[in-house]
Amino acid sequence: MEFTVSYASFTTAVSDINKIISSKSVIPILSGIKIEANEYGLKLTGSNSDIFIERTIPLLKSGEKVVDIKEFGSVVVLSKYLNGIVKKLPNDICIKLGRNDSITIKSGDIETKLNGFNANDYPKLPEMDRNNKIEIPFGKLTEAIKQTAFAVSKSEAKPVLTGVKMEFEENKLICTATDSHRLARREVTIESKTTESFVVPSTSLSELTHLKEADSSIVEISYTNNFIVFGTAKSSLYSRLIEGVYPNTGSLVPTESKALITMNTQVLIEGMDRACVFSTEWKHNNIQLEIVDDATIKISSNSTEVGMIEELQKIIHIEGQNDIQMSFDGRFVLDALKRIPEENVTIRFDGLMKPIVIQPQNDSTCLHLISPVRSY
Amino acid sequence: MEFTVSYASFTTAVSDINKIISSKSVIPILSGIKIEANEYGLKLTGSNSDIFIERTIPLLKSGEKVVDIKEFGSVVVLSKYLNGIVKKLPNDICIKLGRNDSITIKSGDIETKLNGFNANDYPKLPEMDRNNKIEIPFGKLTEAIKQTAFAVSKSEAKPVLTGVKMEFEENKLICTATDSHRLARREVTIESKTTESFVVPSTSLSELTHLKEADSSIVEISYTNNFIVFGTAKSSLYSRLIEGVYPNTGSLVPTESKALITMNTQVLIEGMDRACVFSTEWKHNNIQLEIVDDATIKISSNSTEVGMIEELQKIIHIEGQNDIQMSFDGRFVLDALKRIPEENVTIRFDGLMKPIVIQPQNDSTCLHLISPVRSY
Repeated sequence: MEFTVSYASFTTAVSDINKIISSKSVIPILSGIKIEANEYGLKLTGSNSDIFIERTIPLLKSGEKVVDIKEFGSVVVLSKYLNGIVKKLPNDICIKLGRNDSITIKSGDIETKLNGFNANDYPKLPEMDRNNKIEIPFGKLTEAIKQTAFAVSKSEAKPVLTGVKMEFEENKLICTATDSHRLARREVTIESKTTESFVVPSTSLSELTHLKEADSSIVEISYTNNFIVFGTAKSSLYSRLIEGVYPNTGSLVPTESKALITMNTQVLIEGMDRACVFSTEWKHNNIQLEIVDDATIKISSNSTEVGMIEELQKIIHIEGQNDIQMSFDGRFVLDALKRIPEENVTIRFDGLMKPIVIQPQNDSTCLHLISPVRSY
Repeated sequence: MEFTVSYASFTTAVSDINKIISSKSVIPILSGIKIEANEYGLKLTGSNSDIFIERTIPLLKSGEKVVDIKEFGSVVVLSKYLNGIVKKLPNDICIKLGRNDSITIKSGDIETKLNGFNANDYPKLPEMDRNNKIEIPFGKLTEAIKQTAFAVSKSEAKPVLTGVKMEFEENKLICTATDSHRLARREVTIESKTTESFVVPSTSLSELTHLKEADSSIVEISYTNNFIVFGTAKSSLYSRLIEGVYPNTGSLVPTESKALITMNTQVLIEGMDRACVFSTEWKHNNIQLEIVDDATIKISSNSTEVGMIEELQKIIHIEGQNDIQMSFDGRFVLDALKRIPEENVTIRFDGLMKPIVIQPQNDSTCLHLISPVRSY
């Protein structure tokens, strides 16, 4: 293996992949980046326990040569040191495979040698049936992920709840996440005829949203029984799927309401944020929401240790009862509100021990359920 | 105590003081901010184990009223919560002392209550003889600190070495710091007739450099046997002094040289930084410096685990021997070089086991000594 590559292309790719790699992987070779030089250019691969990311650097970029390959081949070197040194080099980088899987890296008057691993010992990526694939714009996919993935369970007690359920129906993708105290659901319209459903680890989806792609660029999704691959122009992200039966969440959404209020999203966020300062002593960050009259709600929180807060906010519109009082985990309410870019939100109350429904005003594609907590 | 204060003035002051306060202080009241309303405005005080910071908010700022005091008084409230809530308030803040040392904070439609401590239980600050004081521009003082304080000992084995020695001589301040492997020394010209010398904890000086003051503003330094106070227009920083005899460091500086080379500072920094990637396996981050000939030095480092690096750099000017090879802690060399803003540096070699002397070219007011390490 021997090639010369432009400084910017190589350091960006190595730095992006290095972010997901743990330098303390139990399997030492997985702390490495696999570098492969082939007829199409360079392919760099990195992994953590859940995912593999493959990144290609093509021979040409906008008509300019970025990689010049003298000899095909591959090797694995420790990501931490490769990333540490290449970003500190002054210009174009020549890499050559030497003895015992070590490489020499030359740039200007600087010569370095990095020890490596044999590329044959690196895990093989699963073969995908690329014919059976779903296409979706990057922006729509990441939007649906960002509005749901925060609500997955942080506990491994029920592994299936640590993932986001992605349901592809005709011309539709529905993402759902829940930790059984709260639920987030988002539906986006796409052009697709596939009917499939997967539970994908939220950590993998979080890495996917970090890929620097244009919102309009197309992501190709292909899959096997155990793996799903998100392919963009530059990168492929391989994630394991979570096995197990995802709970039926459709029946959780209350169908009738005792009260429905419309509030300004940003004002409500600021109020909940203040109230959370005083909720640290509670296991569930207890915040009280009280409909005082047709025009006013009171947000309050109380801590024997710290102090208390009470504030009044204007209701824009109300339907139903005007005398409801309930307690919630303030962090959960904040998490949901912060994912709503619309100016106004509606909150639906369905009864004392039933979850509330938070939605953007006039938009049923986005939905958050939050269970109340006992305030005593 | 009762007053109204402008949002910006109060939140800035509370946030600045909050940075030094530990929320887990062994003495609970020291996790608090003392608020005092008096005839001059507000005085806020915070502390960590080494220092107190006092910050004043005057009644008027640029002719505009920023504090309106209805009743004098004082109280101590937990800094973490005061800072947490006030920055989230919408506008001007009214604070009133209530029962049991609690305060109510009102802003717009928001009312909060914070539990507090009796201000009489807060430690008294030492009384200073304000007649006996030294004046020095803030910029000169912080420059001398930043160029030396990094070299103090990180170990408490010799407490006196964890401080910076500040020697005031006629029209001169000399700052010295050493951990016995390296030494940094900086002399600045000031207008002063005082002859005094203090050893100040480097952590206190670091807080001092974080104060947002104009470089030209005057710092008034006053002192007792155990305390030193740095007073600016807005703040007073009280620090304990370190007791003990500071070693005589004057005799450590080599007087003659075997070789003296002049190098470009930035190029040398980049080379040392690369070499440090390969020095992690050594206790002392071993980097080899070798004068190869009259025009070239070689910087190299070698790690059996990671790999090696070798690079050549141009010598701008050389006097004396052209065949010297020595090993250093690369981090120490980098630390020193990064404090030198001048374009070129000189490095003086005095013999195999003697420290090297790094200085800006043509400037003897700044000096760094670094002892060599064994490379076997």
